Amino acid sequence: MDFDNTERTELSTLGEFGLIKHLTQHIQLTRESTIKGVGDDAAVIDNSSLQTIVTTDMLVEGVHFDLTYVPLRHLGYKSVVVNLSDIYAMNAQPNQIVVSFAISSRFSLEAVEELYSGMLLACNKYKVDLVGGDTTSSLSGLVISITAIGTAAKEDIVYRDGAKESNLLCVSGDLGAAYMGLQILEREKAVFKENPNLQPDLEGKDYIIERQLKPEARKDIIELLKNIEIKPTSMIDISDGLSSEILHLCTQSNVGVELYEEKIPIDPLTYDTAREFNLDPTLCTLSGGEDYELLFTVDIGDYNKIKNLPDFTVIGHITNIDKGLNMVAKSGSVHELKAQGWNALLKK
Amino acid sequence: MDFDNTERTELSTLGEFGLIKHLTQHIQLTRESTIKGVGDDAAVIDNSSLQTIVTTDMLVEGVHFDLTYVPLRHLGYKSVVVNLSDIYAMNAQPNQIVVSFAISSRFSLEAVEELYSGMLLACNKYKVDLVGGDTTSSLSGLVISITAIGTAAKEDIVYRDGAKESNLLCVSGDLGAAYMGLQILEREKAVFKENPNLQPDLEGKDYIIERQLKPEARKDIIELLKNIEIKPTSMIDISDGLSSEILHLCTQSNVGVELYEEKIPIDPLTYDTAREFNLDPTLCTLSGGEDYELLFTVDIGDYNKIKNLPDFTVIGHITNIDKGLNMVAKSGSVHELKAQGWNALLKK
Repeated sequence: MDFDNTERTELSTLGEFGLIKHLTQHIQLTRESTIKGVGDDAAVIDNSSLQTIVTTDMLVEGVHFDLTYVPLRHLGYKSVVVNLSDIYAMNAQPNQIVVSFAISSRFSLEAVEELYSGMLLACNKYKVDLVGGDTTSSLSGLVISITAIGTAAKEDIVYRDGAKESNLLCVSGDLGAAYMGLQILEREKAVFKENPNLQPDLEGKDYIIERQLKPEARKDIIELLKNIEIKPTSMIDISDGLSSEILHLCTQSNVGVELYEEKIPIDPLTYDTAREFNLDPTLCTLSGGEDYELLFTVDIGDYNKIKNLPDFTVIGHITNIDKGLNMVAKSGSVHELKAQGWNALLKK
Repeated sequence: MDFDNTERTELSTLGEFGLIKHLTQHIQLTRESTIKGVGDDAAVIDNSSLQTIVTTDMLVEGVHFDLTYVPLRHLGYKSVVVNLSDIYAMNAQPNQIVVSFAISSRFSLEAVEELYSGMLLACNKYKVDLVGGDTTSSLSGLVISITAIGTAAKEDIVYRDGAKESNLLCVSGDLGAAYMGLQILEREKAVFKENPNLQPDLEGKDYIIERQLKPEARKDIIELLKNIEIKPTSMIDISDGLSSEILHLCTQSNVGVELYEEKIPIDPLTYDTAREFNLDPTLCTLSGGEDYELLFTVDIGDYNKIKNLPDFTVIGHITNIDKGLNMVAKSGSVHELKAQGWNALLKK
């Protein structure tokens, strides 16, 4: 934990309204479209002639995060980022968020401040206004629910259902790192449980641990695509595994796909750590989750515009639906793609 | 419980995507402004030249509801209504909602269907589209988080901060009923715990129990005010007690208030039940919560337009801030108003 827990102010000393007032006192609104933020029955936004984009995500303690190794500030940051990622995946700009959380009395005011400061840090970085929310108690764990609101011109919005035969399938950044970061953290937690005197061995694993604890949303990719004048035909963010997201795109677009295993971008540290855990690195990208990279399809005529860009990789192409959804392995053999994404409902 | 629990389908047989598909298959979008609902990274809304109004509420099992006496369908209905109420309190029209819930494996598919059907019933009644959400698991209780999105013309929006000296303070419907309904339900739960063979004695208490279990948002009041061409100077919905909401209005408007105890509208059943419980009926309206009536202020020049309307009651008037916040009791004595609203954070 990256905060000092020696000071402890009980939440009951503030009450609900006191806590809200305390937490929201430093909020600064920066968006011209934010007419009214926290403090009324509802927030007011003026999106003028642009369309409004809305998404929501809920994070539950013990299901989506484990506070034994997730610092609250990082958790707050991540809980905002995962929502913004969904707005970017529409090729839109997030502008506002509303934040609800349920907390038990085991959390002190200082702990809630840490959580909230992480949320505000993300707001600041992504130029998003926190305009409302709800704060309540829970009997046990922490639950965070965030709704993000964005805008886009009607003609700019990219849905999941626009992929066409011969389109190139592209992905930003690299995959599997967040999943391997989680494996490291889980391993060190187990070691610590066995022997609390051992220090966690995280040396050299910074990149993959940061990918797990403090992911970023790919705002830069949306800006880059705009700059090079490419509008993807379809797009989705990778919150579950790559295979599950490819299935979403193809099912909704009514097309098939040919994915090339050798093209899937994997960071060397992710690769080596997967081998260390006796895991297949490719499988970690297909089924691991929480990379928050963007998966999208572009017209093949745009190939020249993108071929030399380091920010994303062409990993396959769209086919007729009759050809099915397949991955061509490094060996040359062909495997059917199946959804094996990270499934919060099945995870115990 | 108003549903048959003999059939039980485990949620794990569907998985997250299967559950979402199952629940959302019958959603019908009715709002012209809903461009894209469930099924992409985010929903898309076109509010044209109107301003966008956003509010969110979180309901936590064991804090906001007790499933031993709250039917899941009613819970779903209420969870939507409490959000819509906040939009109406801005003098705006709700159009869309996004719904997130965390459920543990103790809930069957049939139970989740009941909850969801209640939400859709409210959507249908209030002509609101369910356009997105998140479904996840929890380790223990049920948590529901809903965000409602509405619209209003800029000049129609009513904030909390517009109350002016000599304005009339008005409230719709009657107060304290939801709180007394809760007392009845809690009493019968206690009786049942003592002796499970005893049937709950709810006879003659229908009105107050319904006010607790299945409240309505006062859409009709917003329409009425429009019809008689009154724009309130300030407005708030009563989710906590009357005194707490009056304090919000007056603090934000920087004014005082004189509230007349004898004018506070109380249904005879609420009154009699309060006496039965040895409670002061007025205190139940001041400190009880969840009435979801609208509290608003109007210019005194509008008095002739409202004096004969049965839908709301003038309960006081706004004064200079130096006069403070006071209630004139039936006896004629004057008492300072204090916030004693229902406080989820303090409630154990």
